[in-house]
Amino acid sequence: MQIAVVGKEECTEEEYGAARVAGALIAGNHAILCCGGRGGVMEAASRGAREAGGTTVGILPDRGRGNPYLDVVVRTGMGYGRNVILVESADAVVAIGGGYGTLSEIAIALKSGKRVFGYLTWGIEGVEGCATPEEAVTRAVAAARRSG
Amino acid sequence: MQIAVVGKEECTEEEYGAARVAGALIAGNHAILCCGGRGGVMEAASRGAREAGGTTVGILPDRGRGNPYLDVVVRTGMGYGRNVILVESADAVVAIGGGYGTLSEIAIALKSGKRVFGYLTWGIEGVEGCATPEEAVTRAVAAARRSG
Amino acid sequence: MQIAVVGKEECTEEEYGAARVAGALIAGNHAILCCGGRGGVMEAASRGAREAGGTTVGILPDRGRGNPYLDVVVRTGMGYGRNVILVESADAVVAIGGGYGTLSEIAIALKSGKRVFGYLTWGIEGVEGCATPEEAVTRAVAAARRSG
Amino acid sequence: MQIAVVGKEECTEEEYGAARVAGALIAGNHAILCCGGRGGVMEAASRGAREAGGTTVGILPDRGRGNPYLDVVVRTGMGYGRNVILVESADAVVAIGGGYGTLSEIAIALKSGKRVFGYLTWGIEGVEGCATPEEAVTRAVAAARRSG
Repeated sequence: MQIAVVGKEECTEEEYGAARVAGALIAGNHAILCCGGRGGVMEAASRGAREAGGTTVGILPDRGRGNPYLDVVVRTGMGYGRNVILVESADAVVAIGGGYGTLSEIAIALKSGKRVFGYLTWGIEGVEGCATPEEAVTRAVAAARRSG
Repeated sequence: MQIAVVGKEECTEEEYGAARVAGALIAGNHAILCCGGRGGVMEAASRGAREAGGTTVGILPDRGRGNPYLDVVVRTGMGYGRNVILVESADAVVAIGGGYGTLSEIAIALKSGKRVFGYLTWGIEGVEGCATPEEAVTRAVAAARRSG
Repeated sequence: MQIAVVGKEECTEEEYGAARVAGALIAGNHAILCCGGRGGVMEAASRGAREAGGTTVGILPDRGRGNPYLDVVVRTGMGYGRNVILVESADAVVAIGGGYGTLSEIAIALKSGKRVFGYLTWGIEGVEGCATPEEAVTRAVAAARRSG
Repeated sequence: MQIAVVGKEECTEEEYGAARVAGALIAGNHAILCCGGRGGVMEAASRGAREAGGTTVGILPDRGRGNPYLDVVVRTGMGYGRNVILVESADAVVAIGGGYGTLSEIAIALKSGKRVFGYLTWGIEGVEGCATPEEAVTRAVAAARRSG
């Protein structure tokens, strides 16, 4: 099972903390954490998953190394084209905070019929709002299981 | 100058008519019409531009032929990855109606710092709402000129 | 009909001259010239087609402007991913000179079942070697017509 | 360290066996096995790496599940565009057998300045031919270490 956490590179402390909790819970559910591989929310989710002993996958827009908490690094070199690949690779999506890049990932996920669980993010129709990152991950894991 | 018209494959008659008007005006402004190359809003914009003697470019998600009103066909074979290419290729974006695919294009455009002029579309912060397709094209052409 | 001319950014004078002739002949056959949009062989083919009154399409790896002879600019932002898009968009391919990038385009074209006509290029099985750029274009146009 | 094994979906028994050995050795060297995620050489390499306790990553052209030996599945949905992503994600490439798809991966790797070690594959200038899959992996691991 692969769960994506999407969110901004420049994020608030609250978002960073929430993404770290989300990453840890994803790992605790024996799911693989997929993210955009860079800083901010992406780093926090990778870090949380790594600290909890999980596997982390960073799907980068460039050909760099990404953040220090990645086990697998996919260097797409495709700019925002990586947003599409990230979302297509996930069985369910957790969105935390987020700007326009995150919105594009939410939109592509919903277009592809994937469920998106949001915490402090865009209130777009189709996004299932959650009160905590724990709720978002728990529901995402359940949705990914049903889609599997 | 290249202006993209984005919108759904399944659209209302009102949206189809508006996109056709938009395409004609883009051609009338000596700009190239770029679109996703398929049916609905994409076809209507291509048709309007073609009827007005303009050049039409369809950037397809697949490797097909697209709608019958295309002069240039770019067969990306990249699914929604084409949404990114379409938006990056445009100097300004006109969004008419639209579902989640259109939302992803709006989001990528705004992320890339491009201006998006909307008619009957998502009320996302950053989208400049217009009362008519004429207004949307006029403002998009002016924005594209300034960005050039 | 869309014919791609592929070849290196750094090319010899002979290759530049051949690509310019090829571009002119493609335009003379009322086909659209597609290329990678940058310098060298790509520029020469665009220039030849433009000088002969044809339509030129540059499918760029980046988000730049490409060479000065392009009518339509597709800004993929996908690095070598653009090689795939260029070849998929062509009905037949003409390869002139060329390094590893050109080889990747030849390989993808042959993998996709497209015919490749070569002049001073890789002697890979499947590439149809030609004695002149004129021969390469004439045969490519005929092949594109049959595939249409 | 990430090593890619590239080769055809339809392969000979000899190629399948060689790829399985290569996968096992990559895992034995504590490197991550990256491949195109489908059958044939890709499956054999995944299987060998999995059997040796390693981590396997399949970068798919479609949005499917890939072969049964994958730990991480990247669903690019980008057709041959995935060939570019696979090669860019690798620190060194091992090519076993192979058709035109493999040739495109070899070409992109060499274009990107990556070393390619071949066994029973294309004799292109730049490919470092090896007498056994063991030799190919040993040299690829050494090259990846130096590039790291």
